[in-house]
Amino acid sequence: MSSPVHPKLSVQILGFDGVQALDLVGPLEALASVRVAGHPAYDIRLVGLHGRRFSSETGIVFEADSDLSERATADTIIVPGGSGLRRPDTLKAASSWVLAQASSARRIVSVCTGAYALAAAGVLDGRRATTHWRFIADLAQRYPSMDVDPDAIFIKDGPIYTSAGITAGIDLALALAEEDFGPTAALDVAREMVVFLKRPGGQAQFSQPLSMQMRSGDRFADLIAWMAANPGADQCVEVLAAKASMSVRTFSRRFKEQIGRSPARYAEDLRLDAARARLERRHEPISVIAADFGFGSDDAFARVFSRRFGVRPSDYRDRFQTKDET
Amino acid sequence: MSSPVHPKLSVQILGFDGVQALDLVGPLEALASVRVAGHPAYDIRLVGLHGRRFSSETGIVFEADSDLSERATADTIIVPGGSGLRRPDTLKAASSWVLAQASSARRIVSVCTGAYALAAAGVLDGRRATTHWRFIADLAQRYPSMDVDPDAIFIKDGPIYTSAGITAGIDLALALAEEDFGPTAALDVAREMVVFLKRPGGQAQFSQPLSMQMRSGDRFADLIAWMAANPGADQCVEVLAAKASMSVRTFSRRFKEQIGRSPARYAEDLRLDAARARLERRHEPISVIAADFGFGSDDAFARVFSRRFGVRPSDYRDRFQTKDET
Repeated sequence: MSSPVHPKLSVQILGFDGVQALDLVGPLEALASVRVAGHPAYDIRLVGLHGRRFSSETGIVFEADSDLSERATADTIIVPGGSGLRRPDTLKAASSWVLAQASSARRIVSVCTGAYALAAAGVLDGRRATTHWRFIADLAQRYPSMDVDPDAIFIKDGPIYTSAGITAGIDLALALAEEDFGPTAALDVAREMVVFLKRPGGQAQFSQPLSMQMRSGDRFADLIAWMAANPGADQCVEVLAAKASMSVRTFSRRFKEQIGRSPARYAEDLRLDAARARLERRHEPISVIAADFGFGSDDAFARVFSRRFGVRPSDYRDRFQTKDET
Repeated sequence: MSSPVHPKLSVQILGFDGVQALDLVGPLEALASVRVAGHPAYDIRLVGLHGRRFSSETGIVFEADSDLSERATADTIIVPGGSGLRRPDTLKAASSWVLAQASSARRIVSVCTGAYALAAAGVLDGRRATTHWRFIADLAQRYPSMDVDPDAIFIKDGPIYTSAGITAGIDLALALAEEDFGPTAALDVAREMVVFLKRPGGQAQFSQPLSMQMRSGDRFADLIAWMAANPGADQCVEVLAAKASMSVRTFSRRFKEQIGRSPARYAEDLRLDAARARLERRHEPISVIAADFGFGSDDAFARVFSRRFGVRPSDYRDRFQTKDET
């Protein structure tokens, strides 16, 4: 059976000091493993932002294939994340590179906090995008013209692809391979790398959303601290408004303005996150946790939990179980 | 709240030409992210087998922290896999390094085909271990004194830890971190990296065991080809023995000697693998697949499938679904 020889698709991945090494290596290895008719499907070059040699957050030293002096065009450009992008000079240089390549590249991809470089280049204006769960709130605040999705593993909006934290870059790379060369090519890579082609679970399952929400609520800080400390208490809006010495109507409006959610939704999120933390230990029956956090029944707990995290409490526990703390 | 300062645990990871980059970077990043009382918990050094500079299978160029001239001892040594280890000189040098470090290290770890270096050093004699699913049969054949488990994501046997292919190295690194610094430290890293602390599923879910079994069965090659081509046919042992022109008893014994499984078990595996391949497409109801492969009912199919792959057909499809082939 003879197959036509495909031209390789060119990919450039940006490397810089302070890159998150897995953001870079994960997608690179996934794409490098894609084969069509026995041949590698992508031609991948590592481009050094600060010259050929750069080192990761954790000190891994890489040597790039080229630096910025060589301005080759690419079908796909990929910007990994990393704390290096929080240095203004690095962010500026990376976003300039994105902008320069954007006119010729078919698609622009970010992994994790690489989304900052895309946002700074303006290519995410008016688009849906995601990033590492810990930076969702910050990215949304800095770049209000984009629509940040806190729960996606990856998002495609037009020619711009963004992914959640670190290992999500592999999930996104598999999606690119599937788009380019079909499902079988991507499935073979997933099998080879021992990863799921479609991962069971969204980013919400891995994140601690409360810690981000807490930041924005100075005015209600005491109230929120009380809510967090008393997850089993009655936290209906009337009780909360009384504690804040406001009318229910004023309280609801101001709370929503500052916290971004209704008091009822916020109380539910709080209980769910506390229940989730308890689920990560193994010694309690789920029914005890449901009761402690004021869910009327195991079923009610399972229903609310599934709606928020996309899995039932028992499945969540199976994935994140730890041994008891000593 | 003051915390005692922990001494960092020293880790050495071996790098060599032809390493699988993710085998090396995955565990390195996972361990580098572990923090105790705010400080990194591990002191990690990348050791170059062929000098300081080495390049991965896919051409990523790394610069190691040291080479073999510097013989520092370590608490934990890690050997990643990669096609480089299939070169006899590299395998020999890597296994010599393992042997030299084994006397002082608390534990010895391999990722993916890194298990070959441990096996060649003799440290896996009489122990249970695993490797990438594609190399399970070969490893078992070359080193018959070890017990190779085809379905584990990772295995600890005494001070020796081995893991399945590529991303399984991250799972193993999280287990090491949990062992050393407790479940919360490991959970924090899993969240940060957006990976499951305990991954749902064993290696069998990712592998293609039939392709390995086929290798060993020259004598029965025609019969196996017929079985594979006719998954819906009656493949009871009487039918198969008749096709091979042997008595049932002789056929059963010889088949088992050569293929390693009974004819009935082999026929079931064959049907399961074919059914699994069909599940990876989305357009058919599961009941149609169950019927096509001769399972008496959806329930019977689900039961047999779960026993073999650890998940129900519907869950399997959710994880590995691809769009229809065009």
